[in-house]
Amino acid sequence: MEKVNIKDKLQKFQDLWSPKIVGELNDSYIKLAKFKGEFVWHRHDDADELFLVAKGKLTIRFRDQDVILNEGEFFIVPKGIEHLTKAEEEVHVILIESKTVINTGDVVNEKTVSDLHWI
Amino acid sequence: MEKVNIKDKLQKFQDLWSPKIVGELNDSYIKLAKFKGEFVWHRHDDADELFLVAKGKLTIRFRDQDVILNEGEFFIVPKGIEHLTKAEEEVHVILIESKTVINTGDVVNEKTVSDLHWI
Repeated sequence: MEKVNIKDKLQKFQDLWSPKIVGELNDSYIKLAKFKGEFVWHRHDDADELFLVAKGKLTIRFRDQDVILNEGEFFIVPKGIEHLTKAEEEVHVILIESKTVINTGDVVNEKTVSDLHWI
Repeated sequence: MEKVNIKDKLQKFQDLWSPKIVGELNDSYIKLAKFKGEFVWHRHDDADELFLVAKGKLTIRFRDQDVILNEGEFFIVPKGIEHLTKAEEEVHVILIESKTVINTGDVVNEKTVSDLHWI
């Protein structure tokens, strides 16, 4: 039982597109991630996914619209909905998603992270 | 599908100890709440509960220790653990908990909120 300081944890890693676990809440993990550039179109058929911006600006693209999140804003991507995250400048994000979720969803490519780590 | 600005939502209510729903994530609700003073000792037998401070300082008391959370810090209270939240000055908190959770857990008193509302 330890508290988590989000800014402190964000200083512990630099790699992009590689979420780190910082908490466990029922069937979900709380993760931190740094994004820059563009991810890959994918969906999670069985799980909603929450993106909360801790620093910077995040665009979540959908097939019919873009959502732009600034610091202190969150968006919940419903299960089954194709999306793609992108950021022109590095953005720091808090993710909350089911423990079973794989970052690239239904797609497997070079951005797929199969071994999640706690920090 | 709408993004949520946490500060904007926090301006929409003033009542203390009365969490408001701002999002739905799988089996959980994302809630916002304002606390001042002292809550009641209680536990949630079947659900972990996350407290993330958006503004101010929150103390979570346990039978054997106190945890003090400042802005940008979170703590996950494990299921079954008795706790009591308190704040000398008004604190703004993001809560994430199972949809079935009642704010006072195993206790029913004047602080029990049985009808949750979205804002």
